[in-house]
Amino acid sequence: MSEYKLHEDRFFSPDENIRKNAREIYASVKNLPIISPHGHVDPSIFSANKPFPNPTELFLIPDHYLFRMLYSQGIKMESLGIPAIDGSKVETDPRKIWQIFADNFYLFNGTPSGAWLSYEFNIVFGIQEKLNGSNANKIYDELQDKINSPEFLPRTLFEKFNIEVLSTTDPASDNLVHHKKIKKSGMKGRVIPCFRPDAVTDLSNKKWKANLKLLEKTAGYKIRSYKAFIKALEERRAYFKKNGATSTDHGTFSPYTHELPKKEVKEIFSRALKNKSTAKDAKLFTAHMLMEMARMSTDDGLVMQIHPGSYRSHNELVSEKFGPDKGCDIPIETEYTFNLKELLNKFGNNQNFSVIVFTLDESTYSRELAPLAGHYPAMKLGPPWWFHDSIEGMNRYRRMVTETAGFYNTVGFNDDTRAFVSIPARHDLARRIDSNYLGGLVAKHILSLEEAFVIAKDLAYNLVKKAYKL
Amino acid sequence: MSEYKLHEDRFFSPDENIRKNAREIYASVKNLPIISPHGHVDPSIFSANKPFPNPTELFLIPDHYLFRMLYSQGIKMESLGIPAIDGSKVETDPRKIWQIFADNFYLFNGTPSGAWLSYEFNIVFGIQEKLNGSNANKIYDELQDKINSPEFLPRTLFEKFNIEVLSTTDPASDNLVHHKKIKKSGMKGRVIPCFRPDAVTDLSNKKWKANLKLLEKTAGYKIRSYKAFIKALEERRAYFKKNGATSTDHGTFSPYTHELPKKEVKEIFSRALKNKSTAKDAKLFTAHMLMEMARMSTDDGLVMQIHPGSYRSHNELVSEKFGPDKGCDIPIETEYTFNLKELLNKFGNNQNFSVIVFTLDESTYSRELAPLAGHYPAMKLGPPWWFHDSIEGMNRYRRMVTETAGFYNTVGFNDDTRAFVSIPARHDLARRIDSNYLGGLVAKHILSLEEAFVIAKDLAYNLVKKAYKL
Amino acid sequence: MSEYKLHEDRFFSPDENIRKNAREIYASVKNLPIISPHGHVDPSIFSANKPFPNPTELFLIPDHYLFRMLYSQGIKMESLGIPAIDGSKVETDPRKIWQIFADNFYLFNGTPSGAWLSYEFNIVFGIQEKLNGSNANKIYDELQDKINSPEFLPRTLFEKFNIEVLSTTDPASDNLVHHKKIKKSGMKGRVIPCFRPDAVTDLSNKKWKANLKLLEKTAGYKIRSYKAFIKALEERRAYFKKNGATSTDHGTFSPYTHELPKKEVKEIFSRALKNKSTAKDAKLFTAHMLMEMARMSTDDGLVMQIHPGSYRSHNELVSEKFGPDKGCDIPIETEYTFNLKELLNKFGNNQNFSVIVFTLDESTYSRELAPLAGHYPAMKLGPPWWFHDSIEGMNRYRRMVTETAGFYNTVGFNDDTRAFVSIPARHDLARRIDSNYLGGLVAKHILSLEEAFVIAKDLAYNLVKKAYKL
Repeated sequence: MSEYKLHEDRFFSPDENIRKNAREIYASVKNLPIISPHGHVDPSIFSANKPFPNPTELFLIPDHYLFRMLYSQGIKMESLGIPAIDGSKVETDPRKIWQIFADNFYLFNGTPSGAWLSYEFNIVFGIQEKLNGSNANKIYDELQDKINSPEFLPRTLFEKFNIEVLSTTDPASDNLVHHKKIKKSGMKGRVIPCFRPDAVTDLSNKKWKANLKLLEKTAGYKIRSYKAFIKALEERRAYFKKNGATSTDHGTFSPYTHELPKKEVKEIFSRALKNKSTAKDAKLFTAHMLMEMARMSTDDGLVMQIHPGSYRSHNELVSEKFGPDKGCDIPIETEYTFNLKELLNKFGNNQNFSVIVFTLDESTYSRELAPLAGHYPAMKLGPPWWFHDSIEGMNRYRRMVTETAGFYNTVGFNDDTRAFVSIPARHDLARRIDSNYLGGLVAKHILSLEEAFVIAKDLAYNLVKKAYKL
Repeated sequence: MSEYKLHEDRFFSPDENIRKNAREIYASVKNLPIISPHGHVDPSIFSANKPFPNPTELFLIPDHYLFRMLYSQGIKMESLGIPAIDGSKVETDPRKIWQIFADNFYLFNGTPSGAWLSYEFNIVFGIQEKLNGSNANKIYDELQDKINSPEFLPRTLFEKFNIEVLSTTDPASDNLVHHKKIKKSGMKGRVIPCFRPDAVTDLSNKKWKANLKLLEKTAGYKIRSYKAFIKALEERRAYFKKNGATSTDHGTFSPYTHELPKKEVKEIFSRALKNKSTAKDAKLFTAHMLMEMARMSTDDGLVMQIHPGSYRSHNELVSEKFGPDKGCDIPIETEYTFNLKELLNKFGNNQNFSVIVFTLDESTYSRELAPLAGHYPAMKLGPPWWFHDSIEGMNRYRRMVTETAGFYNTVGFNDDTRAFVSIPARHDLARRIDSNYLGGLVAKHILSLEEAFVIAKDLAYNLVKKAYKL
Repeated sequence: MSEYKLHEDRFFSPDENIRKNAREIYASVKNLPIISPHGHVDPSIFSANKPFPNPTELFLIPDHYLFRMLYSQGIKMESLGIPAIDGSKVETDPRKIWQIFADNFYLFNGTPSGAWLSYEFNIVFGIQEKLNGSNANKIYDELQDKINSPEFLPRTLFEKFNIEVLSTTDPASDNLVHHKKIKKSGMKGRVIPCFRPDAVTDLSNKKWKANLKLLEKTAGYKIRSYKAFIKALEERRAYFKKNGATSTDHGTFSPYTHELPKKEVKEIFSRALKNKSTAKDAKLFTAHMLMEMARMSTDDGLVMQIHPGSYRSHNELVSEKFGPDKGCDIPIETEYTFNLKELLNKFGNNQNFSVIVFTLDESTYSRELAPLAGHYPAMKLGPPWWFHDSIEGMNRYRRMVTETAGFYNTVGFNDDTRAFVSIPARHDLARRIDSNYLGGLVAKHILSLEEAFVIAKDLAYNLVKKAYKL
């Protein structure tokens, strides 16, 4: 094993004409504060501010990017300690799990998870060797020591990571108790919620009725009509806004948008209350609710995010045993030109409206999304998402998007992570890739170096702040 | 702002092993005459040969690539002086409009429009600074001076640009008066029409009846039957051919081709005359007319072009106020293997037939279009179109097409522009990108430099001349 | 023409920082034995071990990649000596055909066929000039001399090529007489069959009844029921396995998988026996048979391959005159997330099952296939196939697949060729491209050189051996 120190020039083009620009550009943005406008970090880690329990629970358990890959190579979820929702016994010894992870760490070679973990181990935790089967225990001990020290408490790391704002993602029924505690605690960084009502807008969700009950509870009244439902959502949005939210998020199967006649939507909602709604009802209701959410955004100014195109829980055996978000969500082909037409025609020319659209279908970057974002004033294109939040994914994004949408119809970087400690790693990687992309444009005499500096700062800091109204 | 002089090596790879080849190859093709076999320049500018009115009307107003981007950033169409078809008041002071353009010129950084404009300003007009808010007025003056001088009259520029042939695109009902005037005028360059009958073959066009009236007028008789319609089209094609046309063009929503039984097509046409045709009728009629156009091409030898897959006037608010071609046309997913099957089975093996197919859906390059063009003798693949007529778009095209279709089932470059002054900029960029691509193949020892020289000339000049029978 | 000697660094990046790594990595794998786990070489050439008749029949006639390209440029199939199944006269003079091939050899510039042929001519046959119209005869003579010598007998070449295993692809009804002869002959290399039952599982095949008769003949009994059909297939699989097969192959139009109720599948099979099955029947039956094949694989351990998404014999004029596999198969858009769901849910978590999935639709690499292979333990992703088995195709594959699926959910290289002599050329190209890709990761400090050596050997040798159980 060669010396394990992340190279200063990592991820930059080996071409010296590009690399020298990339270095200069990166140097100008590397220390900018981190704005994380969309992600899934659990806010309770900051309200509690307790030490993380152990390396396995810090790195592996919350990160479905990791156990997905291990599972694909025949390693059982049980042996990785992933909690089973059916009460099945799973491995509980964090060291045993860590050993499996270490034995198979080579599987992450060439993947973004590998790159992020290297940063976390080497830069955040000062580990001097690359993890493998032989040094697993030793590194576990080193990590455990650090975790136990006050310097690695969540809030301390938040400051050390230079995070200016961190947005979580929260269901409509959430009372935001952790966000309130954080605010009261005097913690310096800003941790804000994001309003995600999917649990109650997706009628095909098996737990829809239960989710609605949760919403009733927070709302403080029974929701027996579509009108009451809309009222509750409007009130929840106002509550989220009051507690710092600047955005909403919508993880729909399809980006189809369509406003239903009032009579029809009421009927669908009534059927749903009676457990009689159909698959078609659910599809139409989601399409209608996207229109409603856009209408509300136009009123309250919350920035709308649409994250469509994931077939959630594709592997039923895994999801029935271990629950959702367990690495078996698979992207599907996604269409935007027809599907977003109604929403963009009604709200896309409106100065008070702002919608950020994401995709898991890269074939839509140059075909649909860049042309749409490059025309409609209200629409911006979100950064490469999930599987595409990677070195090559970011390069494809810039190459397929920039020439049609320019830089200024994009919104900077999202880390979109559940793994708090990976945040600086992810932002650092994104800044490096953008710096390298800009360095290439300078080397090809498409931009001047001065222009590249300006754009680099916009991509790393200004655009996200503006787009998310932070 | 660094010195503003376009770099000799712009757009070439910064890798010296590639760049040295690219330079040599580019040097061998940069001065070849320009053949522009497909575009949308207004022929009246050459028949009139008057000075362009002012920089704003020369550069901005006819170029929906430009105001599309400005509109996407919240700048109103009215403030850009785009004429409203509903009589609304729009800005009329060209200097005010120019100032907005200049203030926002940075939006075009990294876009092909930015690259083309830089060439036009710097090389065609000799402007020594990059346009921005501060120098807007000064540059306006400099441009206006040039525009007013005889050296910048349209015909003079045509010669200076070294254009050998320029094809316009003209409706079936056009009497080609400007083309005739140009011919009589003794202007050296060849300006030829292209037959585009979309206005009368698309029954879903709201103005179909009005368009048919225009066709009747030029035809000189009433068109009361499908038979008369076909007769008129055949006569118009002959007329276009007599006036220099070598090609036809078909901008259909879908590339679906299907021959209808005579009885059915007559019925559809009759329904259309009675304003009773349906959406399905329109779809079938377009599919049938593509078959008819192929049949006629097999007879008269006009090269058929198909430009499918644009959702025209997606933003109804904009198109209702400002008309078509205002930057709100959005590509859609497009399928060729099934859709072109009937046309290619009937005519694709025919030596007298030639069809050039374009796409806005890059996922079809390697999947469908290169395999089709790499098999059917009658089919060639058109160059990267519209949003894909860009540095990265051209690179993707060559990389996804060449290995399956080779170089010789492609047809050189199309500028496809409404902006006359951008023609040399666009051809120069295309020649640079092809030279760089070939330079890369030489550097990777896939081609010899001698072979690259031959192919470069074919791509820049010979292939287009042959494919379009010029 | 410059000197004709394949460059040592061919296909490597011209960037010295990448190239130096690529050279080292390639040097470590170039001499590893070749494992060819999927292809279409005729086994009779090894059982007979006679000299190939002449250069034309060796290189051109079996290779639809070559005459496809020639046909696309207007050269008639008849003039290339492609045998017509309707008894039409075709050219029979191999020298005349060779001359046409040589005259048009420049068409293959920049294509993988060009790269492979250069290797075959220069390295396998020692030809010192690039083929063209002038040297056609001379090179023909040189090749003919070599072909006639014992050093160029099929089995001798097999050893010289350092082939460890070669799998052919064989219909279910094949009695594997050539494979048996080869085994008896004492030939050193291993030539094994692969079970491909498409001819009898595709009810839409016009020859289905005739194919079923062939299966009856080998089975030794009449197949009058679905039950007997399944029994025959199970017996044939066992027979193939006994004769060395480790895999099955399924070239379906769509990857749709769906298990039918027993009653329904029996009815469909009965209708088919009466020539009354419909297009829908055929679609459902294929989907059901993929499920059955997976079930059998789970029992007998044969590795399942799925090659979907080719519209076979798209050009009816050509296929009716010259038969299948004549260069007019065109890819179609292909969907995997929904289509494979049933198969992966039933068998994808099963340790005894292994399925390798291929695609002709590159847009599915990052969107569907890498996420699926990066989750399901039973699924691996096949290498770039057919049109995508090329320099750029391989690069796209690694760039779009690796970050999500890693290296270890892929299965090394397939040459998939009918052209025996092209095998070393194809594997050499693949090893070079993978070495260069890894060299790039090292140059970008994503992998260490030590890690790259390990992965390179896995990609060239270990992964294919493991995935195909060889």
